[in-house]
Amino acid sequence: TALPAEPRLGSVELPRTLDQLRKAAAACRDRTWSRATIDTKAGLRSMYGPLGGPVVVMGPNNFPFAYNAVGGGDFASALAAGNPVIAKAHPGHPATTRILAEAAREALDGAGLPPASVQLLYHFEQQDGLRLVAHPAVAATAFTGSRPSGLALKAAADEAGRPIYLEMSSANPVFVLPGALDERGDGIAVELFESCTLAAGQMCTKPGLVIVPDGPAGLAFVDRVKTTFEAAEPAVLLGARVLEGLREAEARLARSGAELVAGGRTATGTGFRYNPTLFVLPGREFLKNPSAFQIESFGTLSLIVKAADAAEMAAIAASLEGHLTGSIYSHAGGRDEAAYAALEPALRVKVGRLLNDGMPTGVAVSPAMNHGGPYPATGHPGFTAVGFPAAITRFAALRCYDRVRPDRLPPELRDENPTGSMWRFIDGVWTRGPAGGDATTP
Amino acid sequence: TALPAEPRLGSVELPRTLDQLRKAAAACRDRTWSRATIDTKAGLRSMYGPLGGPVVVMGPNNFPFAYNAVGGGDFASALAAGNPVIAKAHPGHPATTRILAEAAREALDGAGLPPASVQLLYHFEQQDGLRLVAHPAVAATAFTGSRPSGLALKAAADEAGRPIYLEMSSANPVFVLPGALDERGDGIAVELFESCTLAAGQMCTKPGLVIVPDGPAGLAFVDRVKTTFEAAEPAVLLGARVLEGLREAEARLARSGAELVAGGRTATGTGFRYNPTLFVLPGREFLKNPSAFQIESFGTLSLIVKAADAAEMAAIAASLEGHLTGSIYSHAGGRDEAAYAALEPALRVKVGRLLNDGMPTGVAVSPAMNHGGPYPATGHPGFTAVGFPAAITRFAALRCYDRVRPDRLPPELRDENPTGSMWRFIDGVWTRGPAGGDATTP
Repeated sequence: TALPAEPRLGSVELPRTLDQLRKAAAACRDRTWSRATIDTKAGLRSMYGPLGGPVVVMGPNNFPFAYNAVGGGDFASALAAGNPVIAKAHPGHPATTRILAEAAREALDGAGLPPASVQLLYHFEQQDGLRLVAHPAVAATAFTGSRPSGLALKAAADEAGRPIYLEMSSANPVFVLPGALDERGDGIAVELFESCTLAAGQMCTKPGLVIVPDGPAGLAFVDRVKTTFEAAEPAVLLGARVLEGLREAEARLARSGAELVAGGRTATGTGFRYNPTLFVLPGREFLKNPSAFQIESFGTLSLIVKAADAAEMAAIAASLEGHLTGSIYSHAGGRDEAAYAALEPALRVKVGRLLNDGMPTGVAVSPAMNHGGPYPATGHPGFTAVGFPAAITRFAALRCYDRVRPDRLPPELRDENPTGSMWRFIDGVWTRGPAGGDATTP
Repeated sequence: TALPAEPRLGSVELPRTLDQLRKAAAACRDRTWSRATIDTKAGLRSMYGPLGGPVVVMGPNNFPFAYNAVGGGDFASALAAGNPVIAKAHPGHPATTRILAEAAREALDGAGLPPASVQLLYHFEQQDGLRLVAHPAVAATAFTGSRPSGLALKAAADEAGRPIYLEMSSANPVFVLPGALDERGDGIAVELFESCTLAAGQMCTKPGLVIVPDGPAGLAFVDRVKTTFEAAEPAVLLGARVLEGLREAEARLARSGAELVAGGRTATGTGFRYNPTLFVLPGREFLKNPSAFQIESFGTLSLIVKAADAAEMAAIAASLEGHLTGSIYSHAGGRDEAAYAALEPALRVKVGRLLNDGMPTGVAVSPAMNHGGPYPATGHPGFTAVGFPAAITRFAALRCYDRVRPDRLPPELRDENPTGSMWRFIDGVWTRGPAGGDATTP
């Protein structure tokens, strides 16, 4: 993968992956995720439960641990909901996936779960992938990867009526308001550089689109970013396909009228290397063809758009498709409040996570995280791929029990709280306490 | 609509509709529906909010009030989530819809909401409907109606990446276990008759598929149902298309090998009338071609399947597609527990609502209701069309705020509880209390 063993894999990603698995296991034990809802007066009790079939998980190239089809977030979510998993190994790290699958197999044995609860496929033809996600025995699919692959899988799953959760692509727009630019433009340029070069820019939350005010401060910002990009060593990419994608993105941006100001050259050194690359474009040009300039470039390739004024910034936000994140940098002392108020409503509905004064890379595993967003960032604006308990509920069906006899109810819906720690919504109150019995006459 | 003004419309459906609107309004005010989640340690706060565009609502023919595109459950849910609604009137009750739209307009004025928050279209060509649900400015669609129309709309919305919530069709299987049949077969036959003839069988939860044990008790049950069906007056249907659909269903069942035992004749009297119609089929024949025998028949047309034993019953359950409901009648004294245990797991994953000892008609507006189910009953197994707050969340996007300054947060996510009554998930605890401020270093 060309990802450094230290600190990236050993000290960052592996601990994060283990933390994620532990949180999923805790959520699974605690069972709050199932959103048990009890209406004793109506004799109705409902909860989320397994889908009744396996979940296909297809992981991406860029997180061999945290998003691996075995052991990653989707895997943990699908399994925590009680579903078996059919994992598709990414060709970029088959041996890592095998080791994780062996660990999973050991864990299944230890927990007394059926060995087929986790299955692993190394490779199949594209057509077989499309057949798999549409197969009647498959309950749902989780996919993280490129937009073309995601859309092909989505079409197949949609036609078969099978839920599919996609994390496809995002340009992660960053808006820098005039006050912030005056106040700390240099610092923001450094933050941008660091965020863009993290993991050679191969992050789903890499800021690929930056909107700054035109004028002297904006030009100084562009210069500063250009300098940091040019001074950086070319980074080694995950593979040949990533480099091809970046070259295609460069060609598309140039063809569409963006100006290359840094990088774009053939990099020297071993491996598939890439020089941090920067394009610049006036806001009015962006607005003539917004869809051409907000396609994800997977790697350190970003576009800075110079907006004429606050209205043009808001117009750019309104012209966006769905993205995972959106950031707004504003003046600490309140000088940008009017511009923020004009921009935020337009940006808010286009992104899953809105940041203030921060770059989007780094996705905390928190119940309040949304690693999701409107189409085409994902396939549905209501779900997050990261953070428990919400990520688990994606792979669950809502199950209502209507006057079902008490001894036949699942433990989550009986009067007594099955774990003690589980939160349940009982007669309009979220509580860890027991439920009263159902009224005799529903 | 040929639905009686009393008691059906005036004393049953209208009060239910008003109750539903009041509950949606209460949920909207209370704001628990937005599932505000606060992680003060990580500086992350998230909630469900409006989609950023209008929701298209297309109502069915059978509930001129409760499911009307203006004033019905989907309408109330979409509006409660903060979205404008583009309603499509059903051609079966355009004037009712107009009156409801006038009332809605008055309510919007009274509440100071923009007049375009509710828009009404009376008619469009099918192609324009497909364009509408796929339009970039439309955020989502709710549809209740036939499977062919629903699937056509789903294909268009899916391709455009727009969420669509469908309530399409359901046979609502009812399983009668041997002990229950011995104990109270006659009573169950009467319940079945009443459920099948409610609103002339034009209910999405009408039991269209009944599975009973073969043998003398099963045959006596069939006879009893046949007698009640034959004794009933032919009921007036909603319109010509419903009658055509029933004739098509009769022809399909007969062609597939089911035996007609009651009805199936041309009914006399004014209006589009239909005689309660009953078919019977051996379980082994059902299992040879399960998909032919579980298609919804909209009207009083049901199929009784005679199962050879408990294993065949479970096999029939396993061969089901997704349905809204499934019922199991069992012996009150515990004689059917083994058969129940064999049947329930197979049936549970195929239906949204599982009933014990009850017919599925009658859908309570409760937080614990699931009026939904796996495909093709609906388009997604995780959502309910009835019951607040869950029905509202369908029309909402998950919005995360990452280190957003406190005074810029929506009221739901500020430290103070904005309504006092709102439940929020704060640092792992569901509470109506305030949140502590975010940690300074996220």
